[in-house]
Order: sequence, then structure tokens, then C-alpha cells
Amino acid sequence: MDLKEKFMKRAIALAQRGKGFTAPNPSVGAVVVKNGEKIGEGWHKRYGSDHAEVVAIKDAIKNGYDVKDAELFVTLEPCNHYGKTPPCTEFILKHKIKKVYVGCKDPNPSVKGGGIDYLKSKGVYVESGILEEKCKELIEDFMIWIEQKRPYVYLKIASTLDGKIADRYGNSSWITNEKSRTWVHELRARVDAVLIGSNTLYKDNPKLTCRLKKREKKDPFATVVSQNLPSQKYSYLYLFKERPQKTIFFALSDPYKTFDFWVRKGVNVHLLKERSKNFLDLKEVLKVLYREYKCYYVLCEGGGKIANSLLEDKMVDELLLFFAPKIIGDEKAISNFRGRSDVSLKDCYTFKLKKVKTFDQDLCLVLKPER
Amino acid sequence: MDLKEKFMKRAIALAQRGKGFTAPNPSVGAVVVKNGEKIGEGWHKRYGSDHAEVVAIKDAIKNGYDVKDAELFVTLEPCNHYGKTPPCTEFILKHKIKKVYVGCKDPNPSVKGGGIDYLKSKGVYVESGILEEKCKELIEDFMIWIEQKRPYVYLKIASTLDGKIADRYGNSSWITNEKSRTWVHELRARVDAVLIGSNTLYKDNPKLTCRLKKREKKDPFATVVSQNLPSQKYSYLYLFKERPQKTIFFALSDPYKTFDFWVRKGVNVHLLKERSKNFLDLKEVLKVLYREYKCYYVLCEGGGKIANSLLEDKMVDELLLFFAPKIIGDEKAISNFRGRSDVSLKDCYTFKLKKVKTFDQDLCLVLKPER
Repeated sequence: MDLKEKFMKRAIALAQRGKGFTAPNPSVGAVVVKNGEKIGEGWHKRYGSDHAEVVAIKDAIKNGYDVKDAELFVTLEPCNHYGKTPPCTEFILKHKIKKVYVGCKDPNPSVKGGGIDYLKSKGVYVESGILEEKCKELIEDFMIWIEQKRPYVYLKIASTLDGKIADRYGNSSWITNEKSRTWVHELRARVDAVLIGSNTLYKDNPKLTCRLKKREKKDPFATVVSQNLPSQKYSYLYLFKERPQKTIFFALSDPYKTFDFWVRKGVNVHLLKERSKNFLDLKEVLKVLYREYKCYYVLCEGGGKIANSLLEDKMVDELLLFFAPKIIGDEKAISNFRGRSDVSLKDCYTFKLKKVKTFDQDLCLVLKPER
Repeated sequence: MDLKEKFMKRAIALAQRGKGFTAPNPSVGAVVVKNGEKIGEGWHKRYGSDHAEVVAIKDAIKNGYDVKDAELFVTLEPCNHYGKTPPCTEFILKHKIKKVYVGCKDPNPSVKGGGIDYLKSKGVYVESGILEEKCKELIEDFMIWIEQKRPYVYLKIASTLDGKIADRYGNSSWITNEKSRTWVHELRARVDAVLIGSNTLYKDNPKLTCRLKKREKKDPFATVVSQNLPSQKYSYLYLFKERPQKTIFFALSDPYKTFDFWVRKGVNVHLLKERSKNFLDLKEVLKVLYREYKCYYVLCEGGGKIANSLLEDKMVDELLLFFAPKIIGDEKAISNFRGRSDVSLKDCYTFKLKKVKTFDQDLCLVLKPER
């Protein structure tokens, strides 16, 4: 591998550690190199803290190195404007960095080209486009925030090898092993809301909390989408009883006239007008979560129908498909994706396979929709 | 990694190259080492040819080495009896090999312990059990032949991520990509028979030949299992028209009195009495293939029902599950495994995940049933 790519790869890996904690900033990683050797590294840890370039340069200095004439590898174009922190370009110039290698340019309209042009005008050698595709992937979430004003959506589904998420009696405990389920909690620790359909709410009575002890964020919101607002008899459900303030309920209609009842309980209730085919418009749901609840990442753990609706509305950014090494062999068991009809093979949703993870005997496929 | 394991791993990889071509002998690989360096290697290529130990020692000599006092790594205990070839033990002694490392002992009742004991009695240092589990896996097929008198069965199914092998209209062209399909032809080149159900026969009118140009074996038999012998109107099907002598048809009944008709056409017809639940007994089918047609490896490419029947009868030795990165989302599309009813999650067939292969964007899981 090319040396430049080697250092950029490291910067990408560092950036990924910040995923979920930097919003509304993008995840960025950086590496400082001198005489072909890495002397400092860092990543943007959370909104308001030092940007990756600054962390990496400070790290090199802390390690006892003189950063003058060093090279900087950074996954995203350095910022050139005053935000929560001063511009990184000034920090780079102040420390006399000689060469800057950039993964991809900043797509933010207020920045575009600015950082690179400014550094060049000050005599710094700048080369951009190192592992560009991978660096662009790092900011896919950021792009969705600024362009679509909605959260980045993970869709997680766990099934048997024949695509069943529960047996015909509705029992789904447990398809996957404990390691897989723990990893889902790691994911919950990085998202701002978990989204389910009402079938899952009534059947599983879930908590939707993150059961990891050590974590940086608070428990995510529990978001439920449903045709109808529930009747009062469902007050016993965990989300309504124990976490009403952290529960957001979206429905199309209120047949039991319970809107005020749930509001008094402390539940965040939204009656939507927007429909998409025969369900509520999930795009609108997501926009409300972004706008009113500052949700940057949403994890959908709903059943096969909401999964299909999200795909239908092109609202899935990353599909996490768990397979347990089991086969039930019963057509009437419940499918991981369902609800479409009269579709032929050419109407399939198609994906790019990004990664295959294993959790002991379980498999997790990380896929991105082809758009 | 331990040096012994390193050389044994190489011997295992060599053995795998012979897979499919050595029957009724097991696949065996061997490596010759001197002063910590590999000086020769080989594998048993086909029945009647030199055993792996002999190939490896000859290879070392051909490479210009003196094999006296060398070490031999072999996946299976060397034979000590006269078969198609003289005993390997004598060859080892003749060439003054000092140490022999064995993967697993020979389970063949006529050999058990013989080779190792004999070498030891002649002063050779022998250590057995190096990567024993993996070496045992190498001879799983061989064990099935000698213990169960039936072929080793691969079950191959290709589906979407929601476990569908065709859309609701029965169209299955094509779920997987060309690379995956080419690999299936490589598999066909190693098996002695391809097995399908009559649904697949009537719907797809398949050829079941191997389309690779370069290969060692002839085309596999096409084996069809069905409730009924077909009526004469199906004479147009490719298998009956173009490959009758290579077609073996198993059925439970002959409602159209066509047994003699198909025999005259040259088709190998078997009317079975043995039933298993409501289908013919696939175990009996396999035993006939082994006994009467010398089939050591069978590849089942049938639909979801025959797949389930094979699992039910515990006749699957290796499951090859292809997933294309697509979702159809229609519950009425045809499932990869179907036919069971009233089963709950605890009744799942369970597997061990042995390997994950990728063919561009397609995935192939190699699984073995837990027994």
C-alpha cells in the first residue's frame, strides 16, 4: 500500500471512533507524520471539542516532537471559519505544517474549497482526494443532515437463515446470540432514537434502553410509529409507564380520543397528516425527530413491515442484517421484510455489501442501499 | 502460530485440492520438512495414484533434497496395508524419515492404529493429533462412505436477503451474480450427481451439466426425486431428450404407467417403496446412488421443499447458502426452506458457520449441521 493511503487509512479508523458523538459536526480523523513516521494522531471527539487536526497536532507536541515541516493527513478539508472553535487552517499555519493531505473536500456550502485554497495561498502544499471514496463515506451522515434535514437511519433486523424474525406464534426470543445482542446495545449507545412499529410495541413491550454500563450518551428516545394512538388500557406498557418523557409516539389517527391523556402522562405525541401509500410518512417522522428532538442518528429495530416502509421511502442509510445459523423452515413464520405484493424479481431493493461481521456463530451484514 | 501447526495447515490446504477426486479414498495432504524448512509437498490426486506421503517425499527428492532424517507432516495416519498401492509406512521407512506428525488417526477399521504403531515399532518418532479437528473434517466424507454407505451431500440454495429463491410468479433468473453461478459449476465439476425435485424439473427444464471447459470428471448424473413418474408428454424436457442415460429418476408411484416408456428412452428409473413422512425416503435415494451409481458426492440444487426434506432426514452434510444483496419484501415470493408447520423457534435446525465467501457483492455461507 501507498504510504499516503496507509496514513489516511489510519485517519479514517480514528474518525470512526467519533461516530455518533460529533453531531452536528462530521466525524473526522487526522494523523501527523514526520520523516515517514507517525508522530501524532487524533479525532474529533464531540461537538465543541477540538477538531481532529488540532487534536493530532497537539498529540504530536505532547509526544515531544517538533511539528514544524511535518505532514498532516486529515479525512476532511480543514475548516476555514469561526464556529465553536477557531479555524483549523490558522492552527495549521501557526504550527508551520508543510504538507496537508486531504481525504475529501468539505461539502458544507459555507466552507467549500475555502480551507484548501486558503492554505495553498499561504504556501502550504495541499493534495486532496486520498482514499476519497472512503472519506466521503465517513461524512454520509453529515451530508444527510445538511441536505435532507433528517437523521441518519440504521435499520437493524435479526433473522434466521430463511429470513424469519419470529416463529408463526410471534415468538422471537432469541434469534441471535448474546454477543450479537450486546453489539446492538453498543449501537443504541451511539444513536439518539430507536424506532419501532406498534406491532413490536404491543407484542414485545420493549424497554429500548441501552444496557451498557459505560457510555457517553443518555438513553435514546423510544419512537413508535402507528396507524392509531393507543387506547388507555396500554398504560401498563414499559415505555408509557417508565419512560414517558423519552417516548415519542407518531400516529395517523386518534380513534380512542387519547391524545390529551398521553400528553398528560408526559408522552410526546404527534398526530401526522402526511401519508405515504397506506402508512404514515416516515420521512416526515424523521424530519420531526431531527428538527424537534435533535436526533442525528436513528436506529430502527421495528418489524418486517416498518422495515419495508423505510425501504419504500428510501429512508434507510445503513442496513444491519443479523443472521443466526438456524433454519425454521416454516413459511408461516414471520418474515424479515414483508408487505409488498405483486412484485417480481426485477423490483428488488438492491444493496452494496460493505462489511461482514461475525459474532461467534452469528453473522452481521452491513449493507448500503443502491440509490 | 506453532511451527507444527503451520506445516499441518499447509498439508490441509493441499488435501483440499484433491477433494472430489480421490474417492473411495479420503483426501490427504503432506509436507516434508528439513531444518525447519519445507522441502517437498503433495496431495493424493485420485484413486489409484500415489498417496500424499509418497507424492511429498518424491517431490522433495525431485527438488534435490536428501530426505534422510527429514520430518513428514501428513493429515491422516499413513496406511500400513496393501491396497491399490504399497503401504506408505514402508515408503517412509525406506527413505529414513525421522519424525512423522499426523493430523488424525485412520478411522478405517482395517487400518486403525496400524500405521502409527508400526512406524513407532521401527524407531520412527510419531506424534499425532496436530490440528486434529481440522484434519478430521477433511475426512468427514470418507467417514460417511464407510459408516453410512451413502454419498456426502452438499445442499446449495441461493436466495435474496429475505430468503426468497424466486418471486411469487416463480421467476428465479437470476438471484445471484455470474461469479456465484460460475462457482456452482466448479462444484458441479467435483460431484457425481446433482439432485433436484420435480418442481425444479418442470419449472426450469434444467440441463444440470457443468459448463466449465477444463475439468477432470465427466458431467454429474442428473437425479430427480418426485412423487410420481411423469407422463409421456414430458419427453421434451432436456434431461429426458438429451441426457437420458445420465438421468436417474426416483418416484413413489407410476400413475401414468410410464415406467417401461422411460426405461426404453434410456432413463434410469427407480420406483421406491420407502417413504419418509409424506415424501420418498431421501436416505434410500442416496444409498441407491452410492451403491448402484458409485456416487460419492451429491449436490442438491432443488427447491425449498426438497431442501427441507433433506434437513428433516439429516442428510445434509454441508450447506452452501448464497445470498444476493437484494430484498424483494413480498411474503408470497418463494422461500428457500419451506414445508414445515407448527414449529416454534426452539425447533430450528441449527448449524455451525464454517466459512464466509464473497463473490463480488454476493455472499456464500458454508455451514455444517449440528448433530
